[in-house]
This record gives sequence, C-alpha cells and structure tokens, in this order.
Amino acid sequence: MNEKIIKTHGSIHRIRKMSGFSFLILRTAHRLIQCVLEPEKCEIFSPDGRPWKEALKEEMCIRMEALEVAEPRSRTGWELHPVRIRILSVPAEAMPVVIHGKEIPASLETILDNRPLTLRNERERAVFRIQDALVRGFTEFLQQQDFVQVHTPKLVSQGAEGGANIFRLDYFGKEAYLAQSPQFYKQMMVGVYERVFEIGPVFRAEKHDTARHLNEYTSVDLEMGYIEGFEELCRMEEAMIRHALEGLKAICKEELDLLQVRIPRVEAIPFIRFHEAKEQVAKRYHRPIREKDDLDPEEEKLLCRLIGEETGSEFVFVTHYPTAKRPFYAMEDEKEPQVTKSFDLLFRGLEVTTGGQRIHTYADQLAKMKARGMDPAHFESYLMIHKAGMPPHGGLGMGLERFTARLLELDNVRRACLFPRDIHRLIP
Amino acid sequence: MNEKIIKTHGSIHRIRKMSGFSFLILRTAHRLIQCVLEPEKCEIFSPDGRPWKEALKEEMCIRMEALEVAEPRSRTGWELHPVRIRILSVPAEAMPVVIHGKEIPASLETILDNRPLTLRNERERAVFRIQDALVRGFTEFLQQQDFVQVHTPKLVSQGAEGGANIFRLDYFGKEAYLAQSPQFYKQMMVGVYERVFEIGPVFRAEKHDTARHLNEYTSVDLEMGYIEGFEELCRMEEAMIRHALEGLKAICKEELDLLQVRIPRVEAIPFIRFHEAKEQVAKRYHRPIREKDDLDPEEEKLLCRLIGEETGSEFVFVTHYPTAKRPFYAMEDEKEPQVTKSFDLLFRGLEVTTGGQRIHTYADQLAKMKARGMDPAHFESYLMIHKAGMPPHGGLGMGLERFTARLLELDNVRRACLFPRDIHRLIP
Repeated sequence: MNEKIIKTHGSIHRIRKMSGFSFLILRTAHRLIQCVLEPEKCEIFSPDGRPWKEALKEEMCIRMEALEVAEPRSRTGWELHPVRIRILSVPAEAMPVVIHGKEIPASLETILDNRPLTLRNERERAVFRIQDALVRGFTEFLQQQDFVQVHTPKLVSQGAEGGANIFRLDYFGKEAYLAQSPQFYKQMMVGVYERVFEIGPVFRAEKHDTARHLNEYTSVDLEMGYIEGFEELCRMEEAMIRHALEGLKAICKEELDLLQVRIPRVEAIPFIRFHEAKEQVAKRYHRPIREKDDLDPEEEKLLCRLIGEETGSEFVFVTHYPTAKRPFYAMEDEKEPQVTKSFDLLFRGLEVTTGGQRIHTYADQLAKMKARGMDPAHFESYLMIHKAGMPPHGGLGMGLERFTARLLELDNVRRACLFPRDIHRLIP
Repeated sequence: MNEKIIKTHGSIHRIRKMSGFSFLILRTAHRLIQCVLEPEKCEIFSPDGRPWKEALKEEMCIRMEALEVAEPRSRTGWELHPVRIRILSVPAEAMPVVIHGKEIPASLETILDNRPLTLRNERERAVFRIQDALVRGFTEFLQQQDFVQVHTPKLVSQGAEGGANIFRLDYFGKEAYLAQSPQFYKQMMVGVYERVFEIGPVFRAEKHDTARHLNEYTSVDLEMGYIEGFEELCRMEEAMIRHALEGLKAICKEELDLLQVRIPRVEAIPFIRFHEAKEQVAKRYHRPIREKDDLDPEEEKLLCRLIGEETGSEFVFVTHYPTAKRPFYAMEDEKEPQVTKSFDLLFRGLEVTTGGQRIHTYADQLAKMKARGMDPAHFESYLMIHKAGMPPHGGLGMGLERFTARLLELDNVRRACLFPRDIHRLIP
C-alpha cells in the first residue's frame, strides 16, 4: 500500500461538501493541503476531548492524524485522508472576508482593514515569506562582509533629514522626534566598527498619499568606512541584492512559484549621471524638463524603460544628484560642487535606495552647515565624530517594502507592508 | 626572513614616543595592533598625497604598508613596522576623553555624554560585538525552528501593556502611541505563520530611574502556535539561549577573552512557582513579604542566589505569576484562576524575559476584558483574530540589553545599550 499515517496540524482553510464526503483544505504554516474527509472513517473530538457531533467549520484549528495517499490531481501529488481530528479551537464568528480563494475579492482598503485575517490568504502571506527571505539574504551577506548589526535609538533630539516631515512627541517634558533614519548613528558607528548595518523602522511625517509612500517603513541601512568613492557603495549594494536574490529559491521556492516572481538579473548595474538621465528621458520621450533638480515618478519609470531597452538591466544607479536636493552631510564633487557624490538605485521604475559619500572632516561639515543656515550647536554629538576624526565613509538606505513591491511587481507599496501606516491609516 | 609586507588601515589609537621611535597602536575594525614607527624608515603622506612633515596625531585615520615582524612581547605575538603611511583624515580637535586605556577613566555619565567617541574604547566596543553575536545566534536558532521574522508597526493606536507608561504623539490629527511591545501583532501573525519573531525597538514611558530600566530598548520577541502549555515556550527560550551562547566563541572569541566573560551553563533551567519563590526567599533570608503579587529587585537577586546554590543554575524560570499583575491577554490556570500560565526568566539576579500562554478564544478574551473594565471596541482589530479562530499560543519578550548586561556582568543596563534613552537622556 502506498499509504502512511502522518500527524499534522493547522487551520481549516476551506470546506467543500461533496456527496458522501468533503474536501477540506488544511492550511499549515507552509502550505495548503488537500484532505478528503469521509465522516465514517474519521473520529472527531472537541477541544475538551469529547466526541464532536457537529459540522466542522472553516478557520477551526485542528490536530489531525491522516493517511497520506498519492493523488496526481492534487497540487502536491498527494492528499490526506484524516482518520482522527482533534479540534483545538472553534471560531466565534465566520470570517468577514473570503480569504480562501486565490486572490481576495476585495479592495485594497478592505484587505488592509482586515489585515490580521487577510494575511491568512496564501498569496498575501507568500509576500512576507519572500520579504523575510530577502532580509535573511541581506543580513547574511553583510555579515560575510564584516558588517556589525547595530540597534540605534528611534527617539531622537534632532532629525537627520531636516524639514517638517518629522513626528514630534513629548519626552518627559522635552521635545523629542522619531528618527527619520539612523543616519547620524550609523556614521558614529563607522568610527567604531568601520562597517555597520541596521534593519529597522524609520518614520516620515510626509503628507504624501501615493502608492509609493509609507509613513513608517523598514529601512535596510548600511554605512562603511575607508571607501575610495561612492561607487564602492553601489557595488556593495549590487552584491548584497544579488546574494539575497540568489538565495531566495532555497528558502521560499513555493512562494516564488505561487506569485510567479520574475527574479531580475543583477550584474554590472549601469550608472547614469542625474543630469544625463534627465536629458536622455526628455529627448527620448519628448518630455519637457519641469523640475530641474529631481526626478519625478514618471521620469523614474521612463528612465528604467530606457535603460532596460539599452542594457537589459532592470536596475540603474542614478548618480551625482544636485547638491541643492541632498542633505547637509552629503559630500560634494570636488570638480563640480553643484553635484554630490551620491546616488539613487531605481528598480523597475521606482527609487528603492538613496546613498552617497558623507563629509568626514569637521571644517567641511561646519562650513556646509553654516552655509545652509543651520546651527551647529544643535548637532553637537554628531559633530563630535568629525572633530575627533573620521575615515572617508558613506552608506545607503534601502526601503524594504519598496524593494519587495518591485520584486513582486505589486501595484502599491502597502501590499508589501504587514500593517501599513499612511496619513489615513493607524490601524490595525 | 620572518617578515612580510602587509596593507592595512585604521585609526591611530595611541602614540607613545620613545627615544628614536614611537609605539603606535593602530585600531582596526577588530583589534589593536602594535606598530613600531621609525621616522627614517617610513614615508608619510598627507590626505592630498604630499609628504607629511608634522607629527602624527591620535585618531588620525590612515592606510599603512608595513612589515609584519614576530614579537613575542606583543599581545598578538607580532607587530608591524610601517614603511608607508597615507593619512586619510586629520582630527580637528583632541579627544575630550581618554579612550585608549583599558577602561575609560570617567563616570558613566561622562562615558554616555561622549558615547560616539567612548565606543571606540576596546572594552566598550567589545560589548556590542558580543551583543551582535547574540542577535545572530538568536536569529539563526529561530530560523532553524521555522520562525518567520516580521516587522510590525511602532506607531500604534492602542497600547498592549496598558497603563500610563506610554508615549503619545500627534499622528496627522489623531492620537497615536509608540508600541510598548509587538504583542498584538505577533499574536495576529501566529494565525498566519504559526511561529514568528521580531527583534526591534519598544518604548516605555516609565519614570523609573534605575540601573535596570531604559525607556527605549531592543526586544527579542517570539510567538508560537499549537503549544500544549507555556512550558514549551520556556524550553524554546532555553534552547535559543543555549544556541546563541554556544555560538559566541566562533564569532567573537577575542572580545569574550578581553571582557573575561563567564559563559553560563544552560541546561534544564529549573522552574519555581511564583508563590513558592516568594516563600523560599522569605524563609531562607529572613525577609518579610511586603508586596504579595510581585518580586522586588532584591528578591530577584536572592532567588537567583538560592537557586544557584541549590541547583548550580544561573537561570531560573519563575512561573504562575498572579493574574492581578499580568496583562489582560494572559491565560489563567484552569485549576487556580488567580495565577496565570506565565513566567519570567531570571538570569544572574535580574528578570530578562516575560512570557506566557495567551487567551485564544473570543469568549474568554471578551469576558476578561469586560471584567477589567476595558472597552472591547478599542481593540477591534486585535479581537478579529479571536473571533475568527486562533490556535493555543504563547510567546515571550526578552530585553536584549538586560540579557547582554547580565552575561557580561555589567553594573548598569545602559552599558549594554549603544545610545541609551532614560528619563534624563535623549542625546547623543
């Protein structure tokens, strides 16, 4: 006999009554398993161990003993024939949304309103297994490259990115802010370990309400010393992404297949200078240049299309952003001080990373702050490292949700965030 | 010849002038290296590539080519004789604190005020290499045990731990809070993946000013479904700690040696019931029981002493905490509802973990909330999971800084936090 008894557990994802038996889909931590339930062949017990006479319900949590039977028509090539079911919990109410279809037949709004439950859908949860695998890959790569993982404070006395886009709160009578990035701290830590990274939350009080913005997101931040130029940061990021993508299949092949993920090639990602990018897009797509110092979302998409057609790459590093649009710690190009030694990484039409070389001498940093009308006294502990001595260094921050969304070609970054925060949404 | 030319880089940690030469200590990312600098045998260049005529300074960042020479009297068994030094950056000011001694000769207050620099001290930075290695070990173990790493929001609409100890802020016109723990979210995710973990910041607006409290700390949180009892959580934590401690030597042996870390044995950690613990401590140490429902810091220390003497273990699980002192989601013992299926882990005299089994049925959770005078309407998205169906589950949260502090036998938890936040301190 091609049969054996196995023990498993999970939730009853779906029940379909047939004549004389039911198809029952068991949702385990990893997959959906087809079970054929014939009432007379299966003992069923209640949570307190007594025989269960009623019907089974969807979303009951159960333990099961079952025969594993070959079944070529099932997705896995086998199915289970339960012989003993112990109900562990009985739902109080039916699900408010149908989650057991391939997709959830509801708006993004409804999906997010019911996030604790809609994440039980197999496609929804596949997104975050893949995100977990990306984080594992990034982390593993950075550790191999001798980066130390750090945990820096999110309650801060001064924002790193400046501007009004910062959350404020009362901290025992003092004004505090939520960190917009670990920028100052990761730079400080370069003086300690040379290479550091942090994967953690950052907070932006931006009033944007777009498919690309979140007000709290997970930032993959790294910072490294003793660099010769910002291009080293780009190559480090390229290798990090390549490593993570190459590792995905070993961790979550089923999820990649389910979502039909197109894993991009990551090899010698092309570089293009910011002004060159603006001009080429304007010329190729007959668009007037409106905003001189920044790429708008449409330009990011067109640039990726152009680069894709010319090089086959789905990534592009846009370099030498205008000094006017970069923060006060960005290092300027010696030959052309109106641009910085900085870059963004675009992936499938969207900016997913910002990075660059930082000013490391006290004189230069002080001069730039004064030129911008900033009061150095507010940045005393940050400037400590410039006074005391820092190596040439730089780093980058990648938005984990944005990267995930582009990898999976999701139409909204919220779909790549477990519990997104936007200007309208603070729950669940 | 027992000599070879190597290339390296780092900061000049210390210079000691002798007659005709200098001892120079190079601080690299990993260690201090003794160098013997003989001016006539070494070319020195400025940051812009010109010959450097002045003296070298501490905290200069340099690249170096040097002969590696056997030297039995040095800590490593060898030393470097530089032949070429390229200065990369010149400090603007001398260090405000002496960091190149074995310990920093300053108060904790001064050490923390100058944290960006005092972390460059070899003992200070060793602490956080060990902390990084712990996080690697915990993470690796949990991934092996099929836990999915999640990133849950820190901006929330409702506190999980209740009480007044919560930071509030304005979120686009709504009142928001900083998460006291990922409690609700990790429970929600048990319905999705069965096992999840998160290592991230949590925020407590507690007014305590003690050596054990931080107002922002890093919590190692895990939550798992399909448990038979809370003891499974304890055994999971025990195995996680054992795995991480066993892995330390491979990652940071030099740091362990430097700090003379006593790695504890982690085997069959003993259990003691809360009331039993209270009574035994009172009896053995002739202390009256003042607070019936909690252990005070002195009792935690004495209990660890008692358990250590009786069993040799430096850890102890204290179980069955009084229901009155545990949150509304804690599951009560069926036979003795005045106590919960919960535990704390004490390590070398300090509570480092709180955990327990959670209520998983809607009826029970609703009843308990109502009995406590809570309004279930405020917890709608949390209760969604109880309504829809949840397996028996539980979890725990470990304070990373507390665990590190006890492992390294540091007298203050602030010493195990890169940039601590307390009621007086928001900078650096």
